[in-house]
Amino acid sequence: MENQEIRHRIRLVVAYDGTNYCGWQVQPNGVSIQAVLQEAIEDLVREKVNVTGASRTDSGVHALGQVVIFDTTKNIPPEQYARALNQRLPRDIVVQSSEEVSMDFHPRYTTVEKTYEYRILNRRIPLPCERMYSYFVPRKLDVEKMREAAKLFVGEHDFTDFSSQRRNTVTTVRTIYECSLQKEGDIITLRIRGNGFLYNMVRIIMGMLLKVGCGQKTAEDIEQAFAHPQGRAAAPTAPACGLTLVEIKYPEEL
Amino acid sequence: MENQEIRHRIRLVVAYDGTNYCGWQVQPNGVSIQAVLQEAIEDLVREKVNVTGASRTDSGVHALGQVVIFDTTKNIPPEQYARALNQRLPRDIVVQSSEEVSMDFHPRYTTVEKTYEYRILNRRIPLPCERMYSYFVPRKLDVEKMREAAKLFVGEHDFTDFSSQRRNTVTTVRTIYECSLQKEGDIITLRIRGNGFLYNMVRIIMGMLLKVGCGQKTAEDIEQAFAHPQGRAAAPTAPACGLTLVEIKYPEEL
Repeated sequence: MENQEIRHRIRLVVAYDGTNYCGWQVQPNGVSIQAVLQEAIEDLVREKVNVTGASRTDSGVHALGQVVIFDTTKNIPPEQYARALNQRLPRDIVVQSSEEVSMDFHPRYTTVEKTYEYRILNRRIPLPCERMYSYFVPRKLDVEKMREAAKLFVGEHDFTDFSSQRRNTVTTVRTIYECSLQKEGDIITLRIRGNGFLYNMVRIIMGMLLKVGCGQKTAEDIEQAFAHPQGRAAAPTAPACGLTLVEIKYPEEL
Repeated sequence: MENQEIRHRIRLVVAYDGTNYCGWQVQPNGVSIQAVLQEAIEDLVREKVNVTGASRTDSGVHALGQVVIFDTTKNIPPEQYARALNQRLPRDIVVQSSEEVSMDFHPRYTTVEKTYEYRILNRRIPLPCERMYSYFVPRKLDVEKMREAAKLFVGEHDFTDFSSQRRNTVTTVRTIYECSLQKEGDIITLRIRGNGFLYNMVRIIMGMLLKVGCGQKTAEDIEQAFAHPQGRAAAPTAPACGLTLVEIKYPEEL
């Protein structure tokens, strides 16, 4: 009988500062978070691995809870991966936890809930320590109007006009469970939670809310975009640096 | 009669991210914030200037309200310096405001109140986006004990044992008006306000409070250090990255 190797599927929750990367995915030019993680994992398990992430975050986008899997034949206790990998990773990528999952778990196809946050620095002059973690908006914003408009995104809608390009997605309908704004000093934070997001969806929703905040768009424009999609973004895409992938939940966690 | 040039003294309030600098002061190796500011000012006013800062912050220390002066013969409206300099400065140094002050104003000798904040990230695993703006402390901390101990620093004391080297200061007695801890999620923030601070004083006070928080020092150690100074730091110096110079006030502003 041949030597049968048992494969383990390891799931990591990973936080990163996206500033210095070309995004999650391996790109021809620029260093990707996926490539750096893969290198650290291969250095640890001493075999080739494929690293799959739940979300292909863009360059400059941050994460607190990206979910990542890889398969290995090594018998390392699963909870020890976090610490062992952190010893091999740069300080801007940190594994928060590690565990073994069943071989039929896939981080992308079984997602049931994702949470994003988008931070805006709203003051007359920028603050240096915020430059990589928020979008600087010097214009006066009507936060109450933005709050009212944010509520319109909650529910099941066709988000075609809140995505920046058509992808091979079966449907452009998504359900948003929460879309709320919080203001603390100069910082306005959008928190949005839903069953899935189209490409650039959070950043275009933020772009729309900013237009509402400075009186250039109204609640009607949002309702119009849902009712009669034009096939192009209804508002500008807010910059990547303000966006953080906060959390991803899977069926067994709900 | 010779051409008499009128000199103007301009006061700037400057915010910066200290991560990529060797500190405020010009150093033989490394780029200082002072040097970068001086270059931007000279590029604007087209004459040599001397840039004086209120506080010589160390490498990695941040500022929201560093106060800076320079003299110039140019007749630029003083409030326009902020915007004109920000166009010439990198994004990690931002002038918040500019105004003309009298020629006898000196930012160092007339200071009456300074406020610092020190941020600690207290959780099991580090967070990448916090790595440059807080000190990561994975140990469990007794915040209530730290709060009680913080109160002991308020008032007039001899801070000899809360400074890391003797400087040419006339006295080591300082008055602290406020020393309080706030906890929000994983972030513990020390806010300390006083009439002056010795070299590394805030960072050593923070070091002492951390020792109290993990049970290695007590309120008695603080009282002892005040009553019978040993001439050496009573606790380790907490790292620079957690420290921010928040505000400096001058007599006319109180």
